[in-house]
Amino acid sequence: MRAVVEKFSLTLSPPSLADQRSDERRLREALAETLGVAPEIPLALLRKLPEVLRAGDFKISAVVGKKEHSWKVLGVYPGEGPEPLALAIDLGSTGVVLYLVDPQRGEVLARHSFPNPQIPYGEDILTRLHLASRPEGLEEIRRTTVEGLAREIRQLVGSDLKRLFYYALCGNTTMTHFLLGLPTRWLYREPYIPAVNWLEVLRAREVGLPGPPEALIFLFPSGGSYFGGDLLAGLYYVGLHRREGLALFVDVGTNAEVVLGNRDFLLACAGAAGPALEGGILSCGMQAAPGAVERVRWEDGRFVYQTIGGERPRGICGSGAIDLLAALFLSGLLSPEGVFRPEKAPERFREIKGEPAFVLADEEETAQGRPLYLTQGEVKDLIRSKGAMFTILRVLCESLGVGFEDLEEIFIAGSFGNHIDPEAAVTIGMLPDLPRERFRPVGNAAGQGAVKFLLEGGFGELREILQKLTYLEMNVENRFMQLLTGALFLPHTDLDLFPSVKEKVARHG
Amino acid sequence: MRAVVEKFSLTLSPPSLADQRSDERRLREALAETLGVAPEIPLALLRKLPEVLRAGDFKISAVVGKKEHSWKVLGVYPGEGPEPLALAIDLGSTGVVLYLVDPQRGEVLARHSFPNPQIPYGEDILTRLHLASRPEGLEEIRRTTVEGLAREIRQLVGSDLKRLFYYALCGNTTMTHFLLGLPTRWLYREPYIPAVNWLEVLRAREVGLPGPPEALIFLFPSGGSYFGGDLLAGLYYVGLHRREGLALFVDVGTNAEVVLGNRDFLLACAGAAGPALEGGILSCGMQAAPGAVERVRWEDGRFVYQTIGGERPRGICGSGAIDLLAALFLSGLLSPEGVFRPEKAPERFREIKGEPAFVLADEEETAQGRPLYLTQGEVKDLIRSKGAMFTILRVLCESLGVGFEDLEEIFIAGSFGNHIDPEAAVTIGMLPDLPRERFRPVGNAAGQGAVKFLLEGGFGELREILQKLTYLEMNVENRFMQLLTGALFLPHTDLDLFPSVKEKVARHG
Repeated sequence: MRAVVEKFSLTLSPPSLADQRSDERRLREALAETLGVAPEIPLALLRKLPEVLRAGDFKISAVVGKKEHSWKVLGVYPGEGPEPLALAIDLGSTGVVLYLVDPQRGEVLARHSFPNPQIPYGEDILTRLHLASRPEGLEEIRRTTVEGLAREIRQLVGSDLKRLFYYALCGNTTMTHFLLGLPTRWLYREPYIPAVNWLEVLRAREVGLPGPPEALIFLFPSGGSYFGGDLLAGLYYVGLHRREGLALFVDVGTNAEVVLGNRDFLLACAGAAGPALEGGILSCGMQAAPGAVERVRWEDGRFVYQTIGGERPRGICGSGAIDLLAALFLSGLLSPEGVFRPEKAPERFREIKGEPAFVLADEEETAQGRPLYLTQGEVKDLIRSKGAMFTILRVLCESLGVGFEDLEEIFIAGSFGNHIDPEAAVTIGMLPDLPRERFRPVGNAAGQGAVKFLLEGGFGELREILQKLTYLEMNVENRFMQLLTGALFLPHTDLDLFPSVKEKVARHG
Repeated sequence: MRAVVEKFSLTLSPPSLADQRSDERRLREALAETLGVAPEIPLALLRKLPEVLRAGDFKISAVVGKKEHSWKVLGVYPGEGPEPLALAIDLGSTGVVLYLVDPQRGEVLARHSFPNPQIPYGEDILTRLHLASRPEGLEEIRRTTVEGLAREIRQLVGSDLKRLFYYALCGNTTMTHFLLGLPTRWLYREPYIPAVNWLEVLRAREVGLPGPPEALIFLFPSGGSYFGGDLLAGLYYVGLHRREGLALFVDVGTNAEVVLGNRDFLLACAGAAGPALEGGILSCGMQAAPGAVERVRWEDGRFVYQTIGGERPRGICGSGAIDLLAALFLSGLLSPEGVFRPEKAPERFREIKGEPAFVLADEEETAQGRPLYLTQGEVKDLIRSKGAMFTILRVLCESLGVGFEDLEEIFIAGSFGNHIDPEAAVTIGMLPDLPRERFRPVGNAAGQGAVKFLLEGGFGELREILQKLTYLEMNVENRFMQLLTGALFLPHTDLDLFPSVKEKVARHG
């Protein structure tokens, strides 16, 4: 395996009457020796090739980039040219993460995240899709996205932009369509048809992203309107498709996206888990950033929390919300039905917006001087989300006739995947009650999949994943609605599904 | 074998919940069934694909073009789209010929020739090379060439331009470099290195030629600075590389380009035969066009000539010059040493520019009211050219240890190749004295090779030809100079090399 972009330093044999090969052929054959196949050379580089070869006295360097079935020369320099850089982009519908990569050393040099530039058109994806239903609207979203990305890329990469020869970008199917200006009109109406599944490697310039003229971009393909390039990138990262034993990949976000499988098959499904799990729609919710409550415990009769960076609390992120729900439940302040019991600790509760709310941190503790709390309604939202997630997992396993205990590993990805506490997630009944060492929080698997692609160029593996993939349409499964009801309790109406929680609750009294 | 561009009418299965393939995949897989391989689809077409598919109710047509190792979709249309056209271009350093082709029916629809747009920079190629030695000069020549071609193409193709999806262009190595703006600085100084031998199929737009945005262009590769794409196209046309028996390919022009071989090997060489053979530099020379004297006979003691189109004579083209030389020799008005004998027919001779000149047609016969003549100096030029040609053939055969009699066929190409009379060419000692049926005048073999490429897409055959090719550097062969001397006579000092001429001369008395 080799990175998708590499620099080769070459000493070419100088031409003579006995060796009258053209400059193009001389370079191509030298590179073919290393690459095993002769690369393409674009016209713009051929135009400067004779000068470059002679300026370097036939000692030159060439940057080559990988396409699916070929290589392409992206830059030629006399002597030692620049070392190429690459950029992985996770284009989430809420936030974007950039990873600047040194592909030859296999290192991530910098990481930068920022809100999706489309946010001004609507936090909700449906608002953006509505705008994009007109061609001018689509073009506006496309331009805004590209310009926003380009601005942040320039800022991150600075004067190294001239070395940025390769992009790998993953996003859900809608994001990819927006970025490329592909019509989304048929993506969101039955039968939900994307314009594109698989895209050839394009010139970054054609997409509108900055870099040298010949820089390339690979966009992760989509398996369908609900199976985007981000999910594919995540799967590629964790490698379900290479395992002998059964494993589960869970990407928690606005949609709960789940894939069950091994090297023989991959069964995917997704369902609206609700944005509550991302912490985004809570009154006091925030993304995982300094000051976010990421951890909450109920210890020795007290609520103990911890913030990212150890700062004064500013809000609650997804992992904090899951922890808080678990702590509330274990403390007895929240009933298995999801109803607050303010009478058990009146000092922690207030009436906010006409409903009871649990106050995690009062105005004196927080950064902004406003209390951090969770309302009764928000608890219900969280429970609906966790219930949907658990039910998706259950339907998926059931449809294959396997039990949770057959899962060797459960990879948990998502914007807060690095932080999620499997113990808390099991306690609230969001994840199945399995030995905790089987849970593997993997953070932003999509972004890391894009980085992996830059380092390994796994075109074939991605094809393999797509080929093995079957999609289970959850929305049309009555079984989902049947099973959901029991999952709307903490942890579940059937406590035998959660023996460790049952025991813990008994212990806590 | 299939043409390089084809239209396919497709009835795609409409999408459904049971078949949620993207529009891209649906089209790609349908085309893969026919092509045997999934084609590329450019981003610009993907953007309009969803609309096209639905406008045509999933009955659509797609134009696909061939690249060396893949196919590319060049246009998509609802219902029955336009039938694609293709254009072959023979970019000669003096004249350009266009062939408009219906690739699917295998027909040449129109043919158009015009002077090379670079001519204003100098008839002589060296003048142009000098100009191109500065980057601005190269760019000026490039732009002039492209704009001139584009103008003539628009005029020839008219409103069908939107159907013109594929170009095949051949030219000598310098012409290809000029057209693409590739530096020629190292092409004409030892060791004579072209920037490029083999070019990938490019977008015509990248080169600057008109047509739909995705139209492609294939440029015939060069085997070296002296073995251009035009010669390759000619060889491809006549098919030396597929024959069991030995044959010879002769392209007469400013350079005499000659290839000897069969399916096992191809030995090429070229030498300056001089432009005299093209008729270009004679005082009364002209290109093969209406009014050009193309045929001259000495019959019953009289000179009889024939013009193209039967018009009043305007000048003498290449085949006319060869015929005239033969007729003068047979008439006895020209000695074997190439010296006029005015005393034998004083009424046909005049003193022009201080030397004797034979008058073929006087002022009363010609179109412009000026006599058509050939001077003593021009006779010497013609003899030098024909002598060089014969000597090249001789050295080539000798170097392989074969005799002329081993040649099964001799293909004679060149701008006047359709018109050349092998009888006359043998009489003056330009071509070897072989049974006349072995001579095969093939006209503009280069242009026809480009047409053949459009109809058959023989990338592999061209690679095969280049691989089999060895180049014999004539300028460094002392043997050439040794043998040339004898060939500067009519037909030769060694009359036994030309038994049929010897006999004819004896007959003519």
